[in-house]
Amino acid sequence: MPLVTLTTDFGLTDGYVGAMKGVILRLAPGTRIVDISHEVPPQDVAAAAFILFQAAREFPPGTIHVAVVDPGVGGRRKEIIVDDGRHRFVGPDNGIFSLVCPHVREGWHITAPAFRAATVAPTFHGRDIFAPTAARLAAGASPSEAGPHVLLEGSLGGRPILMSRGGQQVTGHVVHVDRFGNLITDIPAEALPGHATVRIGTSEIAAISAMYEAVAKGQLVAYVGSCDTLEVAVRDGSAQTMLEVGRGEPVVVSGRDL
Amino acid sequence: MPLVTLTTDFGLTDGYVGAMKGVILRLAPGTRIVDISHEVPPQDVAAAAFILFQAAREFPPGTIHVAVVDPGVGGRRKEIIVDDGRHRFVGPDNGIFSLVCPHVREGWHITAPAFRAATVAPTFHGRDIFAPTAARLAAGASPSEAGPHVLLEGSLGGRPILMSRGGQQVTGHVVHVDRFGNLITDIPAEALPGHATVRIGTSEIAAISAMYEAVAKGQLVAYVGSCDTLEVAVRDGSAQTMLEVGRGEPVVVSGRDL
Amino acid sequence: MPLVTLTTDFGLTDGYVGAMKGVILRLAPGTRIVDISHEVPPQDVAAAAFILFQAAREFPPGTIHVAVVDPGVGGRRKEIIVDDGRHRFVGPDNGIFSLVCPHVREGWHITAPAFRAATVAPTFHGRDIFAPTAARLAAGASPSEAGPHVLLEGSLGGRPILMSRGGQQVTGHVVHVDRFGNLITDIPAEALPGHATVRIGTSEIAAISAMYEAVAKGQLVAYVGSCDTLEVAVRDGSAQTMLEVGRGEPVVVSGRDL
Repeated sequence: MPLVTLTTDFGLTDGYVGAMKGVILRLAPGTRIVDISHEVPPQDVAAAAFILFQAAREFPPGTIHVAVVDPGVGGRRKEIIVDDGRHRFVGPDNGIFSLVCPHVREGWHITAPAFRAATVAPTFHGRDIFAPTAARLAAGASPSEAGPHVLLEGSLGGRPILMSRGGQQVTGHVVHVDRFGNLITDIPAEALPGHATVRIGTSEIAAISAMYEAVAKGQLVAYVGSCDTLEVAVRDGSAQTMLEVGRGEPVVVSGRDL
Repeated sequence: MPLVTLTTDFGLTDGYVGAMKGVILRLAPGTRIVDISHEVPPQDVAAAAFILFQAAREFPPGTIHVAVVDPGVGGRRKEIIVDDGRHRFVGPDNGIFSLVCPHVREGWHITAPAFRAATVAPTFHGRDIFAPTAARLAAGASPSEAGPHVLLEGSLGGRPILMSRGGQQVTGHVVHVDRFGNLITDIPAEALPGHATVRIGTSEIAAISAMYEAVAKGQLVAYVGSCDTLEVAVRDGSAQTMLEVGRGEPVVVSGRDL
Repeated sequence: MPLVTLTTDFGLTDGYVGAMKGVILRLAPGTRIVDISHEVPPQDVAAAAFILFQAAREFPPGTIHVAVVDPGVGGRRKEIIVDDGRHRFVGPDNGIFSLVCPHVREGWHITAPAFRAATVAPTFHGRDIFAPTAARLAAGASPSEAGPHVLLEGSLGGRPILMSRGGQQVTGHVVHVDRFGNLITDIPAEALPGHATVRIGTSEIAAISAMYEAVAKGQLVAYVGSCDTLEVAVRDGSAQTMLEVGRGEPVVVSGRDL
């Protein structure tokens, strides 16, 4: 049975998500639908891209990931299918897949009538284009049946996963703040020196620790997180609240033995 | 495998939804459960009715929809099954199905012991009556086995889907405010004149547009939404916040060519 | 198809829950995943224990319940499997299963490589230990293959399910406040006298009622709730808001005929 995951900013106080599920199950009855998130902050494409980056790669080969955070719905951005050789991705061409498929530059524009509802509401492509497309793919259709092969145009402004190295320092940014107030950066573990100091906002952290328990409750801690990048947290607290920083905040790592 | 959808106001910070799922899967192990929403505002039967209206009709024939927003639980309102010939609906007789099944006036009162837990908690019919009933239907039972055929009594006060036409004007109301602050009205697309002005609150919108991008960011826009009714939104913003209006607000469409 | 339920405090604004689902479905493709809750208040082990207590017991025999509310992740508390003879439970040894399995004192410490990711992030045992373990169990492995048999060490401080009887009185506590502001106590139905007065905060309720409708709207009502314990609510309102009390608040029942 094919797997289809859903990631949207539709929330669960409306019937939008249910409508998408209904369409998929009506058109491809054997499909198994898995919710990744419907609580992406409204219209925050970068947050959706990061959530997909965290979650999508864990799924088995052949999974179809539908992501709909789509401030340009009904406008000029294309509706696309992307294939990274392992998974298929269905959604708007606005950069939402740029973290989970960083090397894919091409996809298919969804234009074939069989991949779209008979009437498409200009404000709800989730129901009328992306859900039918996921169902067709789940039922065995090839992405190339959906429409012409196209170059992708969408991108996340400023490309949030970014790391530069200058002399004794590695500079990155906070790319995501999670529910616990942990600050996830784009500095990969392999770029970290063995002994390092981390600066963020007006604070300095004297070492990179192996785990939260390395510091006392209420203290700042830097460590390699579950995305294999540097994270900054407060043990039993919120680094976001303590440091009053958010996405985009610069983070500088200085190696003591570089 | 039968499909059972769930729509409740139970939220997800308690174990109520999990308990319902457990009961259904224990009594009808092959059932596929699909969440429509558990974030209906507490005790807001009209919001649940609207969410069902948006979502339920998309599901395949034979789907069983369970909806539990039930301020009168344990009181005199009946527990019912409604059948519209395509789907079955299970929940309290309080109007919750009146938008999704507007023409159905009869149902079955769930009284048979096989459709109820051995002991029914007066405060949790979701677990003790509606979940067992959904499981029995999913396992192949007929609604008529659940109890006597009855006339439905519940209704949404004021009937929120309503449109009147008087002279040069079409008057309706906001029937739902979605997560994005979009105002969904009950004025159907076919009642709209070709050239129209929309008045809501103290604002006037000079035309009905095809999509959000027809106006500049931050501007009000009126368009036919995904329920095939008139909606009012703010591009990249919230019409609810800008206009300070909510459910029930009158909306008047004046045709320029009527 | 084996059933795996998930209960976490991860919320749905990050990809953590999706990552766990992906791991389970990659390692045990036929598994059916059921969400109980991902909205446990952050790091509130007692709330998670209560949600499991409400929901888990309703599931069919053989269900595997994964629960991850884990302030000590990466520290000394063990990762465990608990088996109560009907269900298996997978999570940290921090008391999270102490309400749903009150009589189980032993489990298995998850140490075998086949039950863990090749690399375990010290901050995300949900993805790297608990999800793989659930998948192995779902695929037919025995808990004893996961690692050594151990005595459980975790407990909820103060043991929230507690009832004492002294003379003419039964004294308990609020153990959970639900979404509606209903106050759920640990005083079991069988301990309640036939005619009773309930005191909580500065309020007194003169009787135990059969249902909400026994009192007028806005009035306090005491009744036996869906956990078979005493609850206090306000009809069409919130007892939490009216009484300004929370978890831990003492509740005293005085029998008029004791």
